[in-house]
Amino acid sequence: MEILRETYSLYGFTPLDTPVIESSEVLLAKGGGETEKQIYRFQKGDADLSLRFDLTVPLAKYVALHYNDLTFPFRRFQIGKVYRGERAQRGRFREFYQADIDVIGDGKLSILNEAEIPAIIYKTFSALGLQRFLIRVNNRKILNGFYALLNLAERSQDIMRTVDKLDKIGPEKVEAILTGDLGVSREQAMEILSFISINGENQAVLSQLEKWQGRNETFDQGLAELKTVVKYLGGFGVPAENFAVDLTIARGLDYYTGTVYETALLDHPEIGSVCSGGRYDNLAEYYTDKQLPGVGISIGLTRLFYVLGEQGMLNPELPTAPADVLILPMTEDLSAAIAFATELRENGIRSQLHCEEKKFKQKISYADKLGIPYVVFLGEDEIREGVAACKDLATGEQTKLDPKATIYRIKAGLDARNRGFVIKG
Amino acid sequence: MEILRETYSLYGFTPLDTPVIESSEVLLAKGGGETEKQIYRFQKGDADLSLRFDLTVPLAKYVALHYNDLTFPFRRFQIGKVYRGERAQRGRFREFYQADIDVIGDGKLSILNEAEIPAIIYKTFSALGLQRFLIRVNNRKILNGFYALLNLAERSQDIMRTVDKLDKIGPEKVEAILTGDLGVSREQAMEILSFISINGENQAVLSQLEKWQGRNETFDQGLAELKTVVKYLGGFGVPAENFAVDLTIARGLDYYTGTVYETALLDHPEIGSVCSGGRYDNLAEYYTDKQLPGVGISIGLTRLFYVLGEQGMLNPELPTAPADVLILPMTEDLSAAIAFATELRENGIRSQLHCEEKKFKQKISYADKLGIPYVVFLGEDEIREGVAACKDLATGEQTKLDPKATIYRIKAGLDARNRGFVIKG
Repeated sequence: MEILRETYSLYGFTPLDTPVIESSEVLLAKGGGETEKQIYRFQKGDADLSLRFDLTVPLAKYVALHYNDLTFPFRRFQIGKVYRGERAQRGRFREFYQADIDVIGDGKLSILNEAEIPAIIYKTFSALGLQRFLIRVNNRKILNGFYALLNLAERSQDIMRTVDKLDKIGPEKVEAILTGDLGVSREQAMEILSFISINGENQAVLSQLEKWQGRNETFDQGLAELKTVVKYLGGFGVPAENFAVDLTIARGLDYYTGTVYETALLDHPEIGSVCSGGRYDNLAEYYTDKQLPGVGISIGLTRLFYVLGEQGMLNPELPTAPADVLILPMTEDLSAAIAFATELRENGIRSQLHCEEKKFKQKISYADKLGIPYVVFLGEDEIREGVAACKDLATGEQTKLDPKATIYRIKAGLDARNRGFVIKG
Repeated sequence: MEILRETYSLYGFTPLDTPVIESSEVLLAKGGGETEKQIYRFQKGDADLSLRFDLTVPLAKYVALHYNDLTFPFRRFQIGKVYRGERAQRGRFREFYQADIDVIGDGKLSILNEAEIPAIIYKTFSALGLQRFLIRVNNRKILNGFYALLNLAERSQDIMRTVDKLDKIGPEKVEAILTGDLGVSREQAMEILSFISINGENQAVLSQLEKWQGRNETFDQGLAELKTVVKYLGGFGVPAENFAVDLTIARGLDYYTGTVYETALLDHPEIGSVCSGGRYDNLAEYYTDKQLPGVGISIGLTRLFYVLGEQGMLNPELPTAPADVLILPMTEDLSAAIAFATELRENGIRSQLHCEEKKFKQKISYADKLGIPYVVFLGEDEIREGVAACKDLATGEQTKLDPKATIYRIKAGLDARNRGFVIKG
């Protein structure tokens, strides 16, 4: 979370905190089946209350409420818990963290933001050490326009939901559902399948899309937007191997209106998207008449780190000890130990005094179990000589140096230990 | 929160996160009237669930559940939201942040922790810039022992609740309630009042307490503990003006068994305690048979900062802008602007590109409204010359320097701006 907060801040996003409890009226303003089933809803006194199930709806309410005090584009990040009462299962949690960034415009918002957002995710994942991931990009207008030019606009939601299952059920079953349940002609179904099976290099995909150009305004607009986003994605610093145009991405939520994103871990496609989002034209339509277009993306933090843990992808070398140094005072007078602890802390070294009545061996074992890398002994001799005895528990190396030199040694050791990333590759 | 997280970490506390939702059985294991009335409780499927009302009960459950995996003393901090459905009123919130630190021992825990805890609070408040505060310290054993030696042990809870109101209702009313409602003799009431009106320098208070010494074992133990805590408080770095022995401090919660703390803002005593806690002998008695003594303290973060805001004690000079630099690209090709933004971010400078279609004046006004201190212009001339035009919006001073020099100038300016504290005095 520290890395996320830092990265998002470097891009000019302001941290926002909104309530976990909201009135049910606010959270359910939009309605919708799954949400309503999963929401934690209860009565307190006269109030009908619910726990937030995402960070977007509370953002919409916040922006509508504070419209006059905000300066647009409003860039905020929020890392917070959300609640969904689904059946608990491996890797699915009812209380979990999401990390969202959104840029909200007043009336309009430049499409460049749609290229910058994945660049921020790229930087964030890189800062965490994640390398083998792919940000997939599409544009809803291409999809909507495509179905419109096939005269299937009204059935496009159902068709896209079916098409979304391509990876799971295969093209034959998709075709069967399209022609069977959804009343699509065989010809149309073939065109849909040929459309969604377009793949290859980004430029190749964009070229292949051009064959439908000029038949529908929305399609043309979507293609132009996608071209712009792809053009600038590289400019914003996302390497070619970390993003791809993918026409199968639609995102279930029906408020996305333009660019949409999903992010896959290349070595674990079975996990699904770990970071998704997109462009919406009207964030807060249920709370204000103002037109507030925006673009946002959300990392399912709890799930992502659960999965990374399960896959053994969390770096075990990275220190997780609560302290860098355990100080063992060997005299009844603690002044010297406290003074040294203070000096360590002033140098940013996390230090704990161990003053419990325990045997020496037990205290060393305490540091060992917690993974505290250094133990400092301050006995009468050391105090008289103005030095600290400092032992590196990993190497066993022990030094007797003056405080400044001891601090220098510890800092150098910690720097080496902290050089790794949170995630392995 | 960043300052709190940093300070607590420097003292070797590990961050802990526990669920907001727990089963009601866990949260209400102890029972108790106020808690049960205020709790947010609801049904989801077959589950009887509640929202946590403090961070101590979830800690107790956590420690009991993970007893075998933990290494004791276990030092954890937690900054999180808690929920109490009390009537909303100025400065009281139903959803608010608490920031807790606790040290939990297995079987026993050195009293030195009871002197270190207020030292950590002193450091935390100092790091925030707060100066005029007083950590009041007492020991429940002195109180319990004192009432025992007056043969009033059974009524001591009621007596202490009454005595707690001394500041609000005055000594006459306290005496009236003691002798009237609680059946205390006039003589006993006088002795109680003389006991709780002991004040003065810490050493003087401790000396005055000695006159009851030798009459009750608990009293004697409490006095010895208080002397130890006072002796080491200074040693742990708390200046004499920031702590005081105060015999009126009892803390309502009946699980405190030794040292207790309250913290007052000297210029705003009407606010009550902004940071309270104490020693308890058995953290998790409802969840495990293990004896887990501990000591902890909690800052009512939301309330504290609400009050500080109301009192005009938050430093308005400290930058709250979401970015340090707003970059205005003046060419269609954004490469130079993006490259410079990247360089700024690599130097820890929070930077935002402004690529919206707005007039130049509107972009400057955007930076102005958000309090972004620097605006960087990158036009064709600047790009050709390899410089950045950088304007300090506060002074109007504009420079045209190469990237390194520009970064140096911005960093120096930010350092000067960030030198202040969050809280004024």
